[in-house]
Amino acid sequence: MKILALDIGGANTKMAILDDRKLEESSFYFPFWKRRNNFYNFLKGIVRFPWEFDAVGITMTAELSDAFQTRSEGVQFILNTVGRVFSNKVLILSINENFLTLEEAFRNPLMIASANWVATSWYLGKKFGTGILVDIGSTTTDIIPVKDGRILIEKRSDLDRLQNNELLYAGVLRTNIATITDSVPVDGIDTRITSELFAITADVYSILGDISEGEYMCETPDSRSKELGDCEARISRIVCSDVETLSKESTHKIAEFIKERQIDKISECIKKISEKCKIENVFVCGAGTFLAEEAAKKAGIRKIKKLNISTASALAMMVAEKLERLPYR
Amino acid sequence: MKILALDIGGANTKMAILDDRKLEESSFYFPFWKRRNNFYNFLKGIVRFPWEFDAVGITMTAELSDAFQTRSEGVQFILNTVGRVFSNKVLILSINENFLTLEEAFRNPLMIASANWVATSWYLGKKFGTGILVDIGSTTTDIIPVKDGRILIEKRSDLDRLQNNELLYAGVLRTNIATITDSVPVDGIDTRITSELFAITADVYSILGDISEGEYMCETPDSRSKELGDCEARISRIVCSDVETLSKESTHKIAEFIKERQIDKISECIKKISEKCKIENVFVCGAGTFLAEEAAKKAGIRKIKKLNISTASALAMMVAEKLERLPYR
Repeated sequence: MKILALDIGGANTKMAILDDRKLEESSFYFPFWKRRNNFYNFLKGIVRFPWEFDAVGITMTAELSDAFQTRSEGVQFILNTVGRVFSNKVLILSINENFLTLEEAFRNPLMIASANWVATSWYLGKKFGTGILVDIGSTTTDIIPVKDGRILIEKRSDLDRLQNNELLYAGVLRTNIATITDSVPVDGIDTRITSELFAITADVYSILGDISEGEYMCETPDSRSKELGDCEARISRIVCSDVETLSKESTHKIAEFIKERQIDKISECIKKISEKCKIENVFVCGAGTFLAEEAAKKAGIRKIKKLNISTASALAMMVAEKLERLPYR
Repeated sequence: MKILALDIGGANTKMAILDDRKLEESSFYFPFWKRRNNFYNFLKGIVRFPWEFDAVGITMTAELSDAFQTRSEGVQFILNTVGRVFSNKVLILSINENFLTLEEAFRNPLMIASANWVATSWYLGKKFGTGILVDIGSTTTDIIPVKDGRILIEKRSDLDRLQNNELLYAGVLRTNIATITDSVPVDGIDTRITSELFAITADVYSILGDISEGEYMCETPDSRSKELGDCEARISRIVCSDVETLSKESTHKIAEFIKERQIDKISECIKKISEKCKIENVFVCGAGTFLAEEAAKKAGIRKIKKLNISTASALAMMVAEKLERLPYR
């Protein structure tokens, strides 16, 4: 049995292929807000032989990209393209932990919009039973309480999750620094920062050595390189300075400060959910696993474990389980 | 005597022409981070007859655009272009309230980087003697204390001014909502917001009727129209919603909340400067005059007056005064 799973984000599309017990993963940069009309060609390009899969699992967050005026429009656009590539082998993950056909999903777009967090949470429940999932991606952090195999989230839209500390726009790559803090210390002096998109968290974590140049998996804000010197230049610009006037040391201290502020924000959400749901162990995953670990520690959590699974891979396993249970197999 | 003054910003270039006592103003959208290499053609296009001017005053903030790696590079690039268009009639405003020649400015780029706030402050000092200037533009707010005709700012770089509440990245058009607040109320519930560039202050002030469609003088974040419906769609997207799921009323309440938070930030700076410099009257100007007025009120200021002058016009007058005093005239 060969299963394909796609996690279609606004900036990156992640793919997993489950071939019997073998799992392969890959990630592709595809910014919807710039190239939505190339999505069909992009998808055909990354999935070269669609006919060889027994089933295709789909989940998405790309419908929120401003390429689409409404989420329904986004979901339907993506489903149309998916349908053209895969015909009828498709299972779409819903926020209620089941799968819809293309037709059902098309008629209920908000049931499948931004459901991707369900896959990893399902996996956590299956494998470990109880824990808070802290999944930090390029753009967002999902914080999902799971108890005795059950996801403890009642209201499941993105809006609901923003209101309940279960979704936080804090990522390890694409997050604008100016949305994390209003000010940073420059040589000991508290300094307001600019509100432009001058630097992103990928610059911070490159400077601090938390991510490698290869892990800087998004565009730079100024279209310059991902090398250390250019990351430093971008960070210095947030205080209207540049590498000629701000020392390397000052820039690194700014980066450390921003990291701490981002950890604070994530940690606050973890703490609230831990207290509310009475769950005291955390599973960390995603591109920002290192950050999730520090945030969980700061929230006072002692039992922290890495969950070595991507959303796409978890989705592939969820589809496999579903197929095994299907009566006609 | 015919004088041209140019205030070259990162997003907009403002122009004033002073012909004897007649003043004409205009503004042109020119985003440096996208089109720096067209700057010569752009400048030639807006200043059709450069030879008819007796003098040309120049000030800029565009050097901070990420089109340039350092501010020196930006200043020198802009001065080179200005020199090609105007030959030797050029006077460049410095942060110390005097004018430099092209050659002097080229050798001391940081003396003229982001000096534009000096022109309006000089005008305030000349005409009214004492007051705090609150000039809100598309992107930033300048808060400048002036006493008995003298600008009360010791250290005058952008970095110094960010540290001293004299420069705040809070504008009436281009400011990313996610840099103003972490959360907004949705139907009474405190809701975290996304950190993407989904909506800007121009959307907020369009919805609230503070600016007209014609005054929305910058690009929209999603390349859609500046009409009310599209502004509402952009605001609803910051809480992962859309116009199908969020009511007009909810969206307008979000806009009101964001306006109040932006007023709070500006007001805080005005208050600090008013107390530090013991100046109790404020002059408001710029595209965000309406916001400056409300922020000054919130800071407890009773004497608020409109300063009907743009930076470019003030600069033209400063040049005229300088020429009248030149010994060789």
